[in-house]
Amino acid sequence: MFMKKVESLIDYRESIRVVDATLRDGGLVNDFRFTQEFAKELYNTNIKAGVDYMEVGYKADKEMFDPADFGLYKFCDDDKVFELFGDKNDKIKLACMADVGRCNYKEDIHDAANSPFSLVRVATYVHQMPGAIDMIEDAKKKGYEVSCNIMAISTAQEEDVKVALEMLGKSGVDIIYIVDSYGSLYPEQIMRIASLYKEYADKYDKKLGVHTHNNQQLAFANTIEAVGDGVDYLDGTYAGMGRGAGNCTMENLIGFLRNPKYDLYPVLKFIENYMIPLKESGAVWGYDWQYMITGLLNEHPRTAIAYTAENRKDLTNYFKEISMQD
Amino acid sequence: MFMKKVESLIDYRESIRVVDATLRDGGLVNDFRFTQEFAKELYNTNIKAGVDYMEVGYKADKEMFDPADFGLYKFCDDDKVFELFGDKNDKIKLACMADVGRCNYKEDIHDAANSPFSLVRVATYVHQMPGAIDMIEDAKKKGYEVSCNIMAISTAQEEDVKVALEMLGKSGVDIIYIVDSYGSLYPEQIMRIASLYKEYADKYDKKLGVHTHNNQQLAFANTIEAVGDGVDYLDGTYAGMGRGAGNCTMENLIGFLRNPKYDLYPVLKFIENYMIPLKESGAVWGYDWQYMITGLLNEHPRTAIAYTAENRKDLTNYFKEISMQD
Repeated sequence: MFMKKVESLIDYRESIRVVDATLRDGGLVNDFRFTQEFAKELYNTNIKAGVDYMEVGYKADKEMFDPADFGLYKFCDDDKVFELFGDKNDKIKLACMADVGRCNYKEDIHDAANSPFSLVRVATYVHQMPGAIDMIEDAKKKGYEVSCNIMAISTAQEEDVKVALEMLGKSGVDIIYIVDSYGSLYPEQIMRIASLYKEYADKYDKKLGVHTHNNQQLAFANTIEAVGDGVDYLDGTYAGMGRGAGNCTMENLIGFLRNPKYDLYPVLKFIENYMIPLKESGAVWGYDWQYMITGLLNEHPRTAIAYTAENRKDLTNYFKEISMQD
Repeated sequence: MFMKKVESLIDYRESIRVVDATLRDGGLVNDFRFTQEFAKELYNTNIKAGVDYMEVGYKADKEMFDPADFGLYKFCDDDKVFELFGDKNDKIKLACMADVGRCNYKEDIHDAANSPFSLVRVATYVHQMPGAIDMIEDAKKKGYEVSCNIMAISTAQEEDVKVALEMLGKSGVDIIYIVDSYGSLYPEQIMRIASLYKEYADKYDKKLGVHTHNNQQLAFANTIEAVGDGVDYLDGTYAGMGRGAGNCTMENLIGFLRNPKYDLYPVLKFIENYMIPLKESGAVWGYDWQYMITGLLNEHPRTAIAYTAENRKDLTNYFKEISMQD
């Protein structure tokens, strides 16, 4: 079960891949309204920093979401993504996320050969697995690498997770993601979950990934715990930008990894030039006590996001509101 | 070596103790200038929250430090501490820190029977061990519980640390602290260090403690890693207030511990009423990129503290300044 002694802290594992999810998870903070300059510079930075994949956003269904309400990263139309980042190249692979039930994938995800994307990331709750499998096979048939995020596993039953892993094992999916949607998991739990996921990954020859949230200041810690447990695909966002308490910070992650292909300097430069100004312009994300509370209570952070938006400071009232059981 | 499976996440270990270091490590942020109200309310909060020890500050040598330059928590005169918190009681134990070479301990640390303190925390670098042992034996003779913090072990040679542990093992010290002074250690390293310290602790019947810094957003993660490795004495500070990037947050720690004696609600109340206003009044501490950089480079954060004080934003210049090797 323990790989940590194998995973020396001054050597590296060739199979590790870093996925930048700033535009996608960070887009949840600002309705995906990033400037073209921001997105292009992020793309250039990722290439310089050695980041392997860049998630551009969601393939959201325009029947459900009005394009007037969101920046283009909510929909990731192929032509707009080509316009932004140019042709596919071997410096970095682009990814898009497709939510089960919120993506018209048969129409909106085109053959990989004609698309700017290399990786389709299917996001699902455990009760939506048949829908996820359908999307996975569709994307696989169209020529993509495919990953699957099983969300909110901290509230799922282990037996259900095992069924989901078995279904994924038998599917065409390439990478199965451990996702701590609520930022409620401790490293010991990541270790146990990784051990379970690894059984299925080994049996069916799949890779594992990890996507964390920072509600309990454990996003980075849980990510590197997962590295030590044999997880290869690591999500990070610049300055941790992401929904609520945010994600594993790209800067801590790149600082941790020892493969010389990864370079911290361009990451710091992007933070200086783009992330600090973005924070100063009023975009709000990152660890705060209200997010710690939803993490502790193993709840979706939506009430904490509302508390934050209302600029509330009455932490004890909030705690009483959401921890009342009657 | 691994205790984690023993240390169930929903049960608890009776031997765990929580130490509030807010006035001491947090005092490094504001020259120990806390109001009486703040200190008294912190004391009451600690009692309500089930915190076991409260570190009031340093016993600093007044020949070296001018009392006019600091609040009283820099010196912790017994009479002033009695005045603040009243007589010793069985609700909470008070602690003071004594730095090797910066404490006139023979004069300034009085017999425990006449003092408000129960625990003397000796802080030493590995090259000062004989001085530390002298202070430990002095405090032990005066009737105190005694702990010893070996600081900056991330830059010490393992052979030297082993000699220090052997010296401590043979001394009267009760608790040996693992200290990540620079916030440069990853949980895997804490695991290895805890394993080494535990050999000596078991051999000589000592307890272990842990004190962390948050440079790489790992202060809480490293603390709970240590819990899983058999470390019992856990330092935390409210809102993580402490030098530079700060410490393990009391709120995350109390939220994590399952012993019903610990209660999060008073902690949240103190944060709402005292820590948020303190931050808003301009006291600056906590994770920031300059501290991440010193953590990564395994350096004292003094240059990052200066960068912060100057309100600099030129992160890349700073990185080049401190990572140049020529």
